[in-house]
Amino acid sequence: MSDTERWSELGQQLRVDSVRTAAVTKSGHPTSSMSAADLMAVLIDKYLRYDFDDPESPANDHLIFSKGHASPLLYSIYKAVGAIDDEELLTFRKFGSRLEGHPTPVLPWVDVATGSLGQGLPIAVGVALAGKRLDRIPYRVWALCGDSEMAEGSMWEAFEHASYAGLDNLVAIVDVNRLGQRGETMHGWDLDSYTRRAEACGCHAIAIDGHDVEAIDRAYAEALEVEGRPTVIVARTLKGKGVKAVEDKEGAHGKALDDPEAAIEELGGIRKLKVDVAKPEPAEPHAFPTETLELPAYDLGEEVATRKAYGDALTALGSADGHVVALDGEVSNSTYAEIFAAAHPERFFEMYIAEQQLVAAAVGLQVRGWKPFASSFAAFFSRAYDFIRMAAVSRATIAISGSHAGVSIGEDGPSQMALEDLAMMRAVGGSTVLYPCDANQTAKLVAAMAKREGISYLRTTRGATPVIYEADEDFPVGGSRVVRASDEDDVTIVAAGITLHEALSAAQTLADEGISARVVDCYSVKPIDVAGLSAAAEATGAILTVEDHWPEGGLGEAVLAALASLDERPKVEILAVAGMPGSGKPAELLAAAGIDAEHIADAARKLVRAAALR
Amino acid sequence: MSDTERWSELGQQLRVDSVRTAAVTKSGHPTSSMSAADLMAVLIDKYLRYDFDDPESPANDHLIFSKGHASPLLYSIYKAVGAIDDEELLTFRKFGSRLEGHPTPVLPWVDVATGSLGQGLPIAVGVALAGKRLDRIPYRVWALCGDSEMAEGSMWEAFEHASYAGLDNLVAIVDVNRLGQRGETMHGWDLDSYTRRAEACGCHAIAIDGHDVEAIDRAYAEALEVEGRPTVIVARTLKGKGVKAVEDKEGAHGKALDDPEAAIEELGGIRKLKVDVAKPEPAEPHAFPTETLELPAYDLGEEVATRKAYGDALTALGSADGHVVALDGEVSNSTYAEIFAAAHPERFFEMYIAEQQLVAAAVGLQVRGWKPFASSFAAFFSRAYDFIRMAAVSRATIAISGSHAGVSIGEDGPSQMALEDLAMMRAVGGSTVLYPCDANQTAKLVAAMAKREGISYLRTTRGATPVIYEADEDFPVGGSRVVRASDEDDVTIVAAGITLHEALSAAQTLADEGISARVVDCYSVKPIDVAGLSAAAEATGAILTVEDHWPEGGLGEAVLAALASLDERPKVEILAVAGMPGSGKPAELLAAAGIDAEHIADAARKLVRAAALR
Repeated sequence: MSDTERWSELGQQLRVDSVRTAAVTKSGHPTSSMSAADLMAVLIDKYLRYDFDDPESPANDHLIFSKGHASPLLYSIYKAVGAIDDEELLTFRKFGSRLEGHPTPVLPWVDVATGSLGQGLPIAVGVALAGKRLDRIPYRVWALCGDSEMAEGSMWEAFEHASYAGLDNLVAIVDVNRLGQRGETMHGWDLDSYTRRAEACGCHAIAIDGHDVEAIDRAYAEALEVEGRPTVIVARTLKGKGVKAVEDKEGAHGKALDDPEAAIEELGGIRKLKVDVAKPEPAEPHAFPTETLELPAYDLGEEVATRKAYGDALTALGSADGHVVALDGEVSNSTYAEIFAAAHPERFFEMYIAEQQLVAAAVGLQVRGWKPFASSFAAFFSRAYDFIRMAAVSRATIAISGSHAGVSIGEDGPSQMALEDLAMMRAVGGSTVLYPCDANQTAKLVAAMAKREGISYLRTTRGATPVIYEADEDFPVGGSRVVRASDEDDVTIVAAGITLHEALSAAQTLADEGISARVVDCYSVKPIDVAGLSAAAEATGAILTVEDHWPEGGLGEAVLAALASLDERPKVEILAVAGMPGSGKPAELLAAAGIDAEHIADAARKLVRAAALR
Repeated sequence: MSDTERWSELGQQLRVDSVRTAAVTKSGHPTSSMSAADLMAVLIDKYLRYDFDDPESPANDHLIFSKGHASPLLYSIYKAVGAIDDEELLTFRKFGSRLEGHPTPVLPWVDVATGSLGQGLPIAVGVALAGKRLDRIPYRVWALCGDSEMAEGSMWEAFEHASYAGLDNLVAIVDVNRLGQRGETMHGWDLDSYTRRAEACGCHAIAIDGHDVEAIDRAYAEALEVEGRPTVIVARTLKGKGVKAVEDKEGAHGKALDDPEAAIEELGGIRKLKVDVAKPEPAEPHAFPTETLELPAYDLGEEVATRKAYGDALTALGSADGHVVALDGEVSNSTYAEIFAAAHPERFFEMYIAEQQLVAAAVGLQVRGWKPFASSFAAFFSRAYDFIRMAAVSRATIAISGSHAGVSIGEDGPSQMALEDLAMMRAVGGSTVLYPCDANQTAKLVAAMAKREGISYLRTTRGATPVIYEADEDFPVGGSRVVRASDEDDVTIVAAGITLHEALSAAQTLADEGISARVVDCYSVKPIDVAGLSAAAEATGAILTVEDHWPEGGLGEAVLAALASLDERPKVEILAVAGMPGSGKPAELLAAAGIDAEHIADAARKLVRAAALR
């Protein structure tokens, strides 16, 4: 059999197996798989370098299905290369199967979860960046993209960044099957509309017939020769190719075929081709030199912004662990990632004002075992929430640092104030949410983040706040700290970050009036210190929480959830930002939001008074 | 004075006033204002048509500062045109001033809040769409953009959509001052990199020197002549233009000038030019015919997906209110927005898979008084969270419908499951969050959304569920419904949406065992029915909440917050999705998540047993 014949046969096999997998639970996306089958057949048979027995090999290429709904095709590839058997293939979408509706890294050959469109390619950019700048291994990253997802701006962020970074190790393959979920895409088969934009972004673009295996072969060969920029192969294809009942037909998206038996017959029946995928040349990733960890230390009473301590601590971590890398969204002089950038320029990635690509690149870097810390204003991570959500599905380990949280930033106003980040980050599967109030605590928490699995988030404050902890104190994730207490406390104030300082000030005012307030620093918002908070509740009864955040989903509700099933539930009052803030001085805005020392003291007085009346 | 001289003088005045405003609180972005001063001088003096005495006039042009940090320039314009006086100008960024750090609609001439980059242009697309397709008035939309924000993919979504929709009433002016916050942008002064991409997106692009007022004049004149596509003017400018200490210098972003007096002198001193902005020709917006509202009605016991009821109800609303419009992100056959599209094609907007542009367009349409309903999978609104957050800062009124919530979608797997949307949407300033369990309730809530101010969110379910309410029942926002109760209830189960049905099934099981469970339908998650929940808590003591969502920030925590300050706080147990789901049948996944009838009954039994032991 000639290569051409073999590829065509392999393409048909991938189609047949895609039809068969979708038939099992009568769900999935066979037609979106069939359009790309020829593109993938040539790729795996001739170009992909991957050791399926050693998916952890640093030398392996990476194949990322940005159009994750084409999972039947991906799993059919895994069968063709011998990674899974036919029996497992037919567990597709069944409860407990590794072959989920959209790919996830539950499978060892899947780098990242896809299925939210427009994410696979930006993540592939991150993997390719790792190959070029960190690993320094000539693996390639192949990203199969859909034409529908080209409408996502994140795809164009990816093309621009790939070009800017000179990622000639990245090949994007766009399967232009013309049809989206509910009808034709914006550009249909106008391949020019895609090549023109890809070229305008600085990519090398090749338009082909995606069912002409020789043209596909030539395109890949051409891509391998391109230097200094990524290649985008734009392939005209037919959705549902090969089965007349669905080929190029609307209404056939995301559905199993009505008559799979007939379709299999029309496609020439079941085949049993095996593909012996070429293995890569062995290679070891580059290692950066490391020293012993020496976290920064600050003196008690010193005024230091926690965002500054983040920069200092991250830089120290970078010296101690060559795997630590940093990315920032063009605000490194605000987030203080610039300190890391100056100390470790080879491991710093400027992602400009493209927060989606920022998080996607972080996810891509961690695919290769690097430990990314991504920073921006906390408010602007809301731009990348879908990417953060999906990073959790990817079982990715990334650290995120959001600066300029809350109304306490002052004059810049609400567009720059994160008031929803605690809610947003708590509601990420398996996440960790930390909110330090001083520089020494920040340093310890940043160090903890480097060891933490999953998505961890650090919320930092713009303004300088006094150092209240010694540099040698420990702040375990999941802990809290009683900052002020006596045996006769009347009320507990739970705060974190900027409000911890307001709480301490309120406690002093209250003390002068004869009211004894316990102050708990709840720096670990998730996981939260159930035992510590329960002890405070038991000791003082009423609890007052105070946060520079909307009332929903933040510190207050986290505390409520921690105490919800106690036998004796304390009364809990939540102080939070109630109305839309404007501009002003930090103190004016904290007061207007009702979360400054005065409001805290006032609320505490009322709680104590109410308790006395009972 | 010739036009040219006048424009140059006016540009200097805008610079001087920008420097003066930033000097007040020593904060703000004068240098980013100075680069665009000449561009704006020519615009307001010759091209803008706006009645500053009647900002609500439908005939007015719209001037949107996508680079919202150039607010000193915008406010200096407002002074030049006589909308504000010099005294007010100098309240910039002071507490209580309308002149916030970044523009918000607290000012009557500001359509939308900006300051999160990459949003003003996509919103401008929405306003221009309203002009073309709804109002049918020849107003123009002028969007001043920064070069840094061109890195946001949302900008390219905007260019693509503007071109696709033939928006020749939109002019984007890109102020290429080369410098971002912390250094040079990706493309510096490579104007070609912008024009090339704009043209590739189908826009008309013009590159000019942004300080040559004659070139600026010619560019605007050319833009007015372009038909069938938007114009993008790419202007090479100097950041901090006119003041040597900061001109084209790094490190001068977002700071007041060190010596404002010297700068004002260097700029030629304070000027008092007044601009008499041309008023538009009067015009009335197009009105769509309307009928009496006839909401769909469903029979008790009928199996109907709430997403289907959304489509039905929205279509009825569209018939009854000509201001109701719908947008969808290429999934209208899943969200059932397709029913509206078929009935009211003139008022339906296909936004393809570009959720940022989807929400931005909705915000733009409501600027002109239209009532947008935007739909997609609930999970994918996480893609637009920054736009939703900012829509609240814009005091926008938009309705969002997120379908396919939670693990109950089944085989598609976690990438398509919204498990964080309640947390995300609750933590939006002033938002409303609704989660119906049956079709009749859905219809009533959709009707309520059309009358609700601010950001309202409807969470719908993929699968069909039985109708349990009569079509004539009322479901006020902020209410709840006791679905099952007796005088001797041992426990209250609070549920909503899909879990309400599981709760009813559990209550039946418990009844067979002699345990009486009250079931409360908490369809209004925000605002929540504090009185109703308190009454249930008082009646039964223990409360069990159950939701198809992560445990954080959702129904359970909303209930806890509602009950936190009661004198007698019930024990509350939250059942929610605890681990990362996979694929499977809805029933399998509800069981695996621990939120099906069996798990509810089990948790209720334990609560009742524990209460009995006390």
